[in-house]
Amino acid sequence: MNILLNNRIVPRESFSLDLEDRGFQFGDGIYEVIRIYDGILFEWEAHLERLVRSAKELMIPLPIPVNTLYQNLQLLVRDSEITDGSVYLQITRGSAPRFHAFPEKTDPTLVAYVREMQRPLEKMKKGIKVITAEDIRWLRVDIKSLNLLGNVLARQKAVEKGAGEAILIRDGMVTEGSSSNVFAIKGNHCFTHPANHLILNGITRQVVLRLLKDTDLTLKETPITLGELLEMDEVFITNTGQEVCPVIQIDEFKIGKGTPGIYTRQLQFAFELLIGSVIPSST
Amino acid sequence: MNILLNNRIVPRESFSLDLEDRGFQFGDGIYEVIRIYDGILFEWEAHLERLVRSAKELMIPLPIPVNTLYQNLQLLVRDSEITDGSVYLQITRGSAPRFHAFPEKTDPTLVAYVREMQRPLEKMKKGIKVITAEDIRWLRVDIKSLNLLGNVLARQKAVEKGAGEAILIRDGMVTEGSSSNVFAIKGNHCFTHPANHLILNGITRQVVLRLLKDTDLTLKETPITLGELLEMDEVFITNTGQEVCPVIQIDEFKIGKGTPGIYTRQLQFAFELLIGSVIPSST
Repeated sequence: MNILLNNRIVPRESFSLDLEDRGFQFGDGIYEVIRIYDGILFEWEAHLERLVRSAKELMIPLPIPVNTLYQNLQLLVRDSEITDGSVYLQITRGSAPRFHAFPEKTDPTLVAYVREMQRPLEKMKKGIKVITAEDIRWLRVDIKSLNLLGNVLARQKAVEKGAGEAILIRDGMVTEGSSSNVFAIKGNHCFTHPANHLILNGITRQVVLRLLKDTDLTLKETPITLGELLEMDEVFITNTGQEVCPVIQIDEFKIGKGTPGIYTRQLQFAFELLIGSVIPSST
Repeated sequence: MNILLNNRIVPRESFSLDLEDRGFQFGDGIYEVIRIYDGILFEWEAHLERLVRSAKELMIPLPIPVNTLYQNLQLLVRDSEITDGSVYLQITRGSAPRFHAFPEKTDPTLVAYVREMQRPLEKMKKGIKVITAEDIRWLRVDIKSLNLLGNVLARQKAVEKGAGEAILIRDGMVTEGSSSNVFAIKGNHCFTHPANHLILNGITRQVVLRLLKDTDLTLKETPITLGELLEMDEVFITNTGQEVCPVIQIDEFKIGKGTPGIYTRQLQFAFELLIGSVIPSST
């Protein structure tokens, strides 16, 4: 496997991280996961825009201009010969003698690589069961940082209970999933947590907000309680890998009839059309 | 420089971290910083006990038995020829294809190295000014994990304001410093936050709790408000590098007379005696 290392495509084995890289010692870095459909980097503008925002919030200088980065990512995808997969991209502040505050001058470390990925069609069709977990993460999860232990522990709990995701609850309110955003529908109202410091504003979330405009659903970007969530007609999660994925059970409670709801299916269909439309070569 | 890599002492340059080490991608790891006085690993039992606890809380298996680890650390210190410094020790869950939940089987990565360190005698004598910052960290800071961005951002804010530390405030209550514990004295009462999930139970904090028994101070392990903190007679912080360090100003407010207090000096003296007592060779 080849990887992108700052401005060069090199064999994975030639990657050598310094012991005192702040990504390794403090989780002092940011990342993105970009979906590749048929060789195309889906929603890359939105991903790179969010990357720039995360970098700015943590005051990490980008090691290369964002336009060059985009060109490099395209080269990386072509080099990988993977047409359906994802790019994982990470930037850390770089290496310096260990001290909490930012070092005076470091060279940020940018690495990216491509992985194959299948669309989870079965889950998207049948829906998934999820659990709830307390949201114990820090109060800046709007920054897509490498401080992910809260997410890791919640997802681990889900796996141990045979569930597909953990929906996080902070002070009684639904925030998001361990690596997804949460949408809930009651009547013709569609609820999702506002994009503040308590959630990561997912790119798929942003796509769904656009797609909602072509439905008769009314968007309510407002937090709901766990009790309200369980009383919804439909619930679904969104993320880069699972797109729009119906939630049919939360802990012991069935959502609606316990099958994917009609609006969720409509949004899945619209998402499918969107993917098709951005891939000119697919037939 | 040589480093300890799992069970071997190797040149730093031979360290090669895998791209998908979970320490690098999730901050999925734990660490300790152990003070070396005159070649002796100070309070090593307490540090290794806490390391074992952190590992257990995150379900990271130790790659080598803790007794072997201690022996290896001693070898590392001797190899370094550093007599006054600190050991940085880190264990990550190891490398696996990126997925939030724990991989089925990984080999944890243990690295440790020694740095020279001077006692900050001037600061310890004159005291330091500190700022306050909101405590935005996750709710399991009792685990000494690599998810340190909340600490990093607070300390950076302190540096930018020319302060020696940031004291963190959560919901109006004083928790701890960005990399220290906070003690405050009023009359003959000594306040410090209880060792629950909201603070890291520092080893120097534990030493000071023992030393307090030989003073006429009464320990109150109870949270205090920021308002109460500012009204204290004396405030000091503790950590491995700064030992017992007086705080003479918080934001714009002088503490007591704006000079190190009498109880703080007494505890510094007791700490000094303790260091001397564990170093049989020092004269």
